[in-house]
Amino acid sequence: MNKRIESTQNSLVKHWKKLVTIRKERDQTKEFLVEGFHLVEEALIRQDTVIQLLVREDIEIPAHWTAPVIEITAAVAKEISETEQTQGVFAYCKQPQYEETAQDNWKKLLLIDAVQDPGNIGTMIRTADAAGLDGVILGKGCADPYNPKTVRSAQGSHFHIPVIRAELSSWIDRLKNNKITIIGTGLQNAVSLNELKPQSDFAVLVGNEGSGVDAELLSTADQVVKIPLYGQAESLNVAVATGILLYSLRAE
Amino acid sequence: MNKRIESTQNSLVKHWKKLVTIRKERDQTKEFLVEGFHLVEEALIRQDTVIQLLVREDIEIPAHWTAPVIEITAAVAKEISETEQTQGVFAYCKQPQYEETAQDNWKKLLLIDAVQDPGNIGTMIRTADAAGLDGVILGKGCADPYNPKTVRSAQGSHFHIPVIRAELSSWIDRLKNNKITIIGTGLQNAVSLNELKPQSDFAVLVGNEGSGVDAELLSTADQVVKIPLYGQAESLNVAVATGILLYSLRAE
Repeated sequence: MNKRIESTQNSLVKHWKKLVTIRKERDQTKEFLVEGFHLVEEALIRQDTVIQLLVREDIEIPAHWTAPVIEITAAVAKEISETEQTQGVFAYCKQPQYEETAQDNWKKLLLIDAVQDPGNIGTMIRTADAAGLDGVILGKGCADPYNPKTVRSAQGSHFHIPVIRAELSSWIDRLKNNKITIIGTGLQNAVSLNELKPQSDFAVLVGNEGSGVDAELLSTADQVVKIPLYGQAESLNVAVATGILLYSLRAE
Repeated sequence: MNKRIESTQNSLVKHWKKLVTIRKERDQTKEFLVEGFHLVEEALIRQDTVIQLLVREDIEIPAHWTAPVIEITAAVAKEISETEQTQGVFAYCKQPQYEETAQDNWKKLLLIDAVQDPGNIGTMIRTADAAGLDGVILGKGCADPYNPKTVRSAQGSHFHIPVIRAELSSWIDRLKNNKITIIGTGLQNAVSLNELKPQSDFAVLVGNEGSGVDAELLSTADQVVKIPLYGQAESLNVAVATGILLYSLRAE
């Protein structure tokens, strides 16, 4: 028989609630919560990720969902939900960890400097996944990849592509040692997107919504690319710009 | 001397509040409100757009802001603001209207079918502006382009590029008469993005976040394009996909 939790005062419920609302709780425990059928399905595909499924008592779950289930009441579901109309299913997850040694084989990367909006970070993780990259590196000042808004906009890509937080300058040194071209984005001393050639290995470096990539970091790039603006817009959304760049590099 | 409004019960304040919260109010009056220095600046550049500027009493505005000013109290600013930390400046605007006859000269267009998220619509308007298109046509089921979230994510592009609401099927007929190629997005009978050639005139047709372009509408496209997914993501965000397509068509 499944374990059942009825009270919003239960200590596990309090922990889950903190996981969706407080970054420190996620950082300290290296756990997070995902919500909704699609994301739970994706979480279950990745081994050793789901600790428990939390399922509202009126919900029937698919037979192939084999992780341990905790039955919860509508009040508990509402307490831990981040949406207005919850589907009543959640996966309580460990944050995926990646072995240091495997990271040396990553040859197509997205490096993100200080992008603050969780929705942008999520969309960029989804885009990097779609473009078949090996990993996403989040530098200082980025939104938490396990923020519920980030998780929702990434649509399950957290379970497909490694996402790690690290010092971007160290990563750039390491990638240069491995002869991977660092392609920064900026306006000065930049070549146009139309001159960018498709490449098999690359690291694309994008930056903050308002100020772009940190100048010192950008100066270490092998090449700086600018996306032409044909109209009157002053810039593109950073996730859209990332998509345009990655797909230009992948074009065959 | 400037007019001054102190009470949140003032009838104009009630109207502005409705403009930011109720779509029907915007639709009926063909007005909207923008907030923050950047958007007010952009609104002022477009002639016959700003009805009045609303400025919190402690805020100094630039000398070149020459529209009529209404001074408002902090309480009024808070009442009509959609942000947590308001900058205290607003422009009360007319929704731009576009003459029917001019529309026959539009040769680069984005047609949007039933995209529901206001942030996506705003990002797509911004992207269409950046790509130098002549207009954006929103079909049935799209979020209101004058929703405050849409306006915020478009970053002022509402004042640069025509955005109109219309029946997409009629627009497709009209564009075909004008020999403009309709490029739909979909998965079936689709050519890959990598086979798409840059073109001087085109109408790109994109659709709903979950279900894509309506099948009947899509069947009227001259060509259907699919963006390759190299990883495990099932799809791209619709605004990112739009950016990739538009910039592929604009590549030189």
